[in-house]
Amino acid sequence: MHNETPLKGHISKRFDHELEDIRNRVLTMGGLVETQVNNGLKALLESDSATAKIVAESDYAINSLEVEIDERCVQILARRQPTAGDLRLVVAIIKTITDLERIGDQAEKLGIFELELIDEGASSSQFVKLEHLGTLVSNILHNALDAFARMNAEDALLTIAMDSKIDGEYEALQRQLITHMMEDPRNIRNTLRVSWCARALERIGDHATNICEYVVYLVQGRDVRHTDYASLTQTNDD
Amino acid sequence: MHNETPLKGHISKRFDHELEDIRNRVLTMGGLVETQVNNGLKALLESDSATAKIVAESDYAINSLEVEIDERCVQILARRQPTAGDLRLVVAIIKTITDLERIGDQAEKLGIFELELIDEGASSSQFVKLEHLGTLVSNILHNALDAFARMNAEDALLTIAMDSKIDGEYEALQRQLITHMMEDPRNIRNTLRVSWCARALERIGDHATNICEYVVYLVQGRDVRHTDYASLTQTNDD
Repeated sequence: MHNETPLKGHISKRFDHELEDIRNRVLTMGGLVETQVNNGLKALLESDSATAKIVAESDYAINSLEVEIDERCVQILARRQPTAGDLRLVVAIIKTITDLERIGDQAEKLGIFELELIDEGASSSQFVKLEHLGTLVSNILHNALDAFARMNAEDALLTIAMDSKIDGEYEALQRQLITHMMEDPRNIRNTLRVSWCARALERIGDHATNICEYVVYLVQGRDVRHTDYASLTQTNDD
Repeated sequence: MHNETPLKGHISKRFDHELEDIRNRVLTMGGLVETQVNNGLKALLESDSATAKIVAESDYAINSLEVEIDERCVQILARRQPTAGDLRLVVAIIKTITDLERIGDQAEKLGIFELELIDEGASSSQFVKLEHLGTLVSNILHNALDAFARMNAEDALLTIAMDSKIDGEYEALQRQLITHMMEDPRNIRNTLRVSWCARALERIGDHATNICEYVVYLVQGRDVRHTDYASLTQTNDD
């Protein structure tokens, strides 16, 4: 297939360069999103209003990167007409940035909830309950971005398996919060806010899982959405 | 650009046919999703356990359509290498089916929450509070699918403007539910379930809005995500 005329070589090189450029922008976007999530967690756990403000107002950079990368993907499809692996990469990128942008939306909520709490002069002591869930979510996002950066399907499948731990922790936390609401009804509004943060974190885990699914699809050419992951990977439970 | 040799005409025709076939599958998927949402609402509002069961178990058809359409889109990109409007249509379809699938996930939750309630032998009387929000969401979804089917950017922009009404109704409902939880703490678990259903409905509205944004992008070639819609359309407030 590789007809290495000088012209063809030149075109391929420019194409590779463009594709690499898009990939780098996705990694930049991933880095911004990861910072937003970690800052959101910091704002909640340390009652840090300055960081909360940054998180609540930094979404625009992520949004504009999404629109920009999306446009570049459409342009590369139109002008370069990639096939096979390159085509799947572009499609996976189009999907990945949608999930990254929505992770950004969820992270923004963490900052907004913290600011609301501070505005009302309410205690943020309950937010410490989010620490374990927050660590799990921060880890799954980091691993998902790593799997994407290195296009490693094996790591992506292991990362997908982490999501059930997050779901378990989320369910346990919700039960705990409901009990707390029954015991202390006057504080329901604040407890609900903790619950909404937990939900935002859980959804970040879901989006990270989606990104891993695109990586598997890209590398192995198989679609693992809506399948039982247990049959796809042996998770190490040590 | 249109070089109408018989061969070219033949290829275009087959291409148009393939594209039309994909578009029809998206409309089928949209129809399934709409049925799921309306059945989910029926199950909640009429305490209808048979319908709730159908909703809780019908997600697989939507999921498998998503995977199938996605694969057809990649194939058409690889084999036909569409450009301009056709390319944007394929990209818009790839995005649209992701949102349709997620609407299906949210509808499934409505069925599951209703079944949980029945299992616990709890009263479903509070679910009537969801009626107005449910009607708004059912309408926005219907309009979004209509705008997609007819590729009508004007209708899409008008539909996007409907989402702020949904957000307002959602916020009002949440405040009402919080008050109810404070007044009747023993019933918190059930009231929370109503709140989760409201959240699922609100997210369906968001996904419907996303679909409308893809239609605008497709027809007008401009990206309206992350912009102020008020500046794009005059809504009729009569």
